[in-house]
This record gives sequence, structure tokens and C-alpha cells, in this order.
Amino acid sequence: MKSYIIGIDLGGTNIPIALVTSGGMIVRQISISTNVSQGPEKVIERIIKAIKEIMNTVGHKSISGIGIGCAGQIDHKRGVVLFSPNLFWKNVHMVKKIKAAFKGLPVLLDNDANVAALGEYMCGAGKGMKNVIFMTWGTGVGGGIIINGRLYLGATGSAGEVGHIIISHDGPKCNCGNLGCLERYVGNKYIVNRAKELIKKEKNTTIHKLVNNDLSKITPLIIKKAAMKGDKLAKQVWEEMGTYMGMGLVSIINLLNPEAVIIGGGIAKAGNLVFSPIKETIKKRALKAASRNVKILRATLSDKAGIIGAAMLVTQHLNSLPKSRKK
Amino acid sequence: MKSYIIGIDLGGTNIPIALVTSGGMIVRQISISTNVSQGPEKVIERIIKAIKEIMNTVGHKSISGIGIGCAGQIDHKRGVVLFSPNLFWKNVHMVKKIKAAFKGLPVLLDNDANVAALGEYMCGAGKGMKNVIFMTWGTGVGGGIIINGRLYLGATGSAGEVGHIIISHDGPKCNCGNLGCLERYVGNKYIVNRAKELIKKEKNTTIHKLVNNDLSKITPLIIKKAAMKGDKLAKQVWEEMGTYMGMGLVSIINLLNPEAVIIGGGIAKAGNLVFSPIKETIKKRALKAASRNVKILRATLSDKAGIIGAAMLVTQHLNSLPKSRKK
Repeated sequence: MKSYIIGIDLGGTNIPIALVTSGGMIVRQISISTNVSQGPEKVIERIIKAIKEIMNTVGHKSISGIGIGCAGQIDHKRGVVLFSPNLFWKNVHMVKKIKAAFKGLPVLLDNDANVAALGEYMCGAGKGMKNVIFMTWGTGVGGGIIINGRLYLGATGSAGEVGHIIISHDGPKCNCGNLGCLERYVGNKYIVNRAKELIKKEKNTTIHKLVNNDLSKITPLIIKKAAMKGDKLAKQVWEEMGTYMGMGLVSIINLLNPEAVIIGGGIAKAGNLVFSPIKETIKKRALKAASRNVKILRATLSDKAGIIGAAMLVTQHLNSLPKSRKK
Repeated sequence: MKSYIIGIDLGGTNIPIALVTSGGMIVRQISISTNVSQGPEKVIERIIKAIKEIMNTVGHKSISGIGIGCAGQIDHKRGVVLFSPNLFWKNVHMVKKIKAAFKGLPVLLDNDANVAALGEYMCGAGKGMKNVIFMTWGTGVGGGIIINGRLYLGATGSAGEVGHIIISHDGPKCNCGNLGCLERYVGNKYIVNRAKELIKKEKNTTIHKLVNNDLSKITPLIIKKAAMKGDKLAKQVWEEMGTYMGMGLVSIINLLNPEAVIIGGGIAKAGNLVFSPIKETIKKRALKAASRNVKILRATLSDKAGIIGAAMLVTQHLNSLPKSRKK
């Protein structure tokens, strides 16, 4: 029986490759370093070698497919990495190359945030639901949308850009060129900037102590630690960030009336420091009919969401085939 | 063969009831007045009488179902008008009553904006597409979402509240209680208010002439007429309104990457006065990957979208049944 899937989380530094059960359990995992400077040909060659190695554990015959998540713009239909700023790849026909090495096996590729959304939906916090919004909150704010039990990709595969919801139409300029996007308020860098701004008026905060007065050392983690120790300024930063995130979610919830919003990524680790203001903002500002039953959940797969979700691309693909084509 | 559907557009003043082909052509239409003061029992009785009358034209046996669109909060699963401010109805079990009068026929009920979205998607500007956003722009801004070829209703049936996307998180208070919603900037009343605000600094505009200096008579239609005659102030009003609408759509397009946005309702009749700034704003501010191919279209069914869409509720319902249950 074909009971295992290969899940791959193609990152700029490392590439974890895992043997995953159809239910999302990781059975074995290896990791190779990316070595971006080698260029796509060589990197893909090494990925193929690693897949073969991990496949040998259970035998080629028990593998039902290979799923890959990759940061950047992906053409999931043609299996092409259109542009990945982390890998410095442009128009890399990745699926074609991997397929050639593993004839007959389905190979699926999608954007990392979509893949994580699928993982959380099928094996994590969203299990058993049908309409779920997933947000990954870190350097930027990415996401994925599950509609009627399937990853929703939109007309050209770029749906789910939750970080580029407008919070304020005349707000500060976002990297994307627009003004006042959610990401421009709550991305890692802007959290740190906001703390630095507030700190100008204060001299003795826990943040000062934690960085030995070297303000260039402030990170979201430092601000979290300070807030956990009761620092007022740090708590204010998180209160503001949670409120902004809540406002982005108000628009999404009013529009899509999801069962749940699942939030993952580094910043979600701030826990109630951000989840409390998020929930409060939604309660105060979203339409009752759309928000009354919505669950705001923390992602549960953490750094495994990428490989598990990548494997789930295969499961979703196989489930969508007519029964006669399934093996 | 069952080739006709009854489509009903339940409004606060009139109730048009039509015989519609499965392809969305209106074959015959009658209209009864609502007489809200009679209360739901009597109104529904008269609707049933009118349905019977129109059914007689072709015979009961050629009718495949009855579809109803109604403004307000609807529980589409149970067929209940939860709350309709136009009808002053609360918890009216409408579908149950109509079903009892037409045994064996499917009866479907949904919110008017969802129904219009379905109509435009199946028989109007969105024909042949799969992922479409529909906006109805008038007193308020309502809408409906078509995902993968079906009306998307969300977890509890309230999806599609496109008017309550946030444009500015610290903007003016909206009727819904939130601040800075799209509707609060571009609803009929606010268009008029904006014209009145701008007019304070001007004395001789075409608007003055069109209302004989009685500014209380300004309507969106007056502002449209003035703009068509080249009035600068009126043109500015539409430019601003189109830009706001465009900003709401930037969030929606970045999130959902639809094939098309279809805009109907009274204000859409302002044509290029609003469509030009809408398109320009999207071009300037939305993510390229999500907006490159998006079509911004005017609705084509105008005031027939309600009855045609209501009939299409039946078509969509029948298409979703397993083949053995279709007759």
C-alpha cells in the first residue's frame, strides 16, 4: 500500500525533507543545506539525491507522491518557481525535473504560506473545519485560505495575501508599493521600530536592561521578554500590534465569515500578549453575524507546518482525483 | 420536462415574481405590492397566491423549484428570514410555509446581495468565470462571492460583507459600529455629504443650478448629471468615491485574486466617472500577481439580477444534487 508521502520545505538556508504518513505524521526527517550559491540545477540534484535516500527507508513502492513548499511566487499549475527572493531563483521548472527522476509519482509545488495553511488545516489547529484563514506572522505577514475544505488559490494562484489588506489608506508605504498594508504595521521590523519610537520618551524600561542599553539589539523576542516581566512600554507595543492584526482580521472576517483564523509564525509565540487584543478588536469591531462563532487559534504544527503541509498537497491532490485513477 | 423556475425578489415596497428559464431568461413577470404593515403571514399568503397564478401559465409540472432573494439577515440552511429591516420581519420561517403550499418542490432563500451575485455570475457579466466578487453599490455596499463556481456563504452564511472592509482604521464611525468601513465612505448618503462639504467653498457649480440652489435636493444622480456636464467639483466627488471603492477592492483582490469584480447597484450607473478611478487605484495599489488579469466589470442584469439570481439558487441547488436525485 502507498502509505507515505515525501514532504519538502524548500528554504533559503536549509531544506528539511521528511517521510510523512497520509495522516500527517513525520516518520523520518533529514535536512540538507541549501547552498543557494550553487544555483538551482545543483540544488535540485541534491534534493533528488536526498529524496532517494529517504525513500530507501520504506521502499519506492510505498510512496504516493512528493510535495514541496517554497517561499516566493509559484506557478502551481506548471510547477514553476517564478521568483523566490530567498533562493534567488527565477522561472525554475522544479516539478518537471523532480518528476523526471521519479517517474509516475505525482509531484506538487506551492507557496510556503499556502502549504502551511493546508498543513494546519488538515493536521493541525484547523482539523475537521471547512473554511479557515491561516496567517503566518513574522518578518512579513503571509497566509493561505481554505474554502470548502480545499486550499483556495484564486484565479492565477496568488490568493491569500493577508498581509496586504489595507489598514489605513493613507498610511505608511509598504514594501509592495501600496500604502497602509497590515504587514507595514505588524511585520517584525515595524514592531521593533515602534518599540524604539516609544522608548525615546522613556529611559528605564526592562527593554533597556535586556539589551544593556544598546537599542540596536531590540528584537521582537526582547520585547516579548520585557512584556512578560511586566514592562509597560513593551506591553503597549504588543497591545498595538494585536490591535492592528485584529483590524486586518475584521476585514477578512466580515468578507469571508470563516470558522476559524489560525495564526502561526514567530510573532504568534507572543501568545496572549497579542491574542488578547486581537480577540478584543474582533469582538468590538467585526459584524456580529460574521464573527460570533469565529475561533481565533494558535497554529499547532510550528516549524513542521511546512513539511507536513507539503505532504498534504499530495493527499489533497489524490483526494481530488476520480476514484478510478487512485491507486 | 421541468424547464422553468420561479424567481422572487422580496423587497420592502414591491415583490416581482417571475417565470425564469433554467438559463436565466425571464418568460413572464408579475409584481405584487409588499404592504409590509400586513405582517409576514398575510404577505406570504399573497406571495403563494401570486406564485400559483404565474405557475398556471405553464403548468405546475414544468416548474423545477422556487428561489427567493430577500434583503437582511437570512438563515439559508433553515430558510428563515432572521431579520429584515425593510420588511420589519424577525425570525420568519418563510421556506417552510412556501414548501407546504407547493409540496415536493425545492424552495431556496438567500440574502439579496448573494442572490444578485449568483445571477450576475450565472447569467450576467460573470458568465463562464469561476471566482468572482460581486458588489452592489447604492445606499450601502453589499456583495456576494463566487468561489470555484458556487456562491460562497461562509461558516454561518454571512460571507460577502464587502461594504465592511476597513479603509481607515481610525476613520469615521460606520452604521455597523466599526470605524472607517468602505460603506461609510461611499454609500449614497456619504457621496451627497461629500458634495455638500466641497460645495461650501464654491458658489457657482452646475450642482447649484441643477437644484436651484436648494442644496437639500442634491442626490447622487444630480452629482452625476453635473459631472457629465463637466462640473469640476462633481467630477472630484466621483474621483474620490471611485478611489475609495478601488482601495476596498485592493484589499479584496490581494486576498482573493478573483478573475473579475462585477459592480452593480445605482452608483455603478455613474459609469466611467467611478470605474476609471477604481481601475486606476487597483492598478496603482494592488499586488501585480493578484491584479494583473483581474477584470473590473459593470453588472449587466441591472434590476433583474434579483429575480434571475433567485431562480439560479434553484439551478445551483439542483446541480449540486447527486444525479440519482435529479428529476
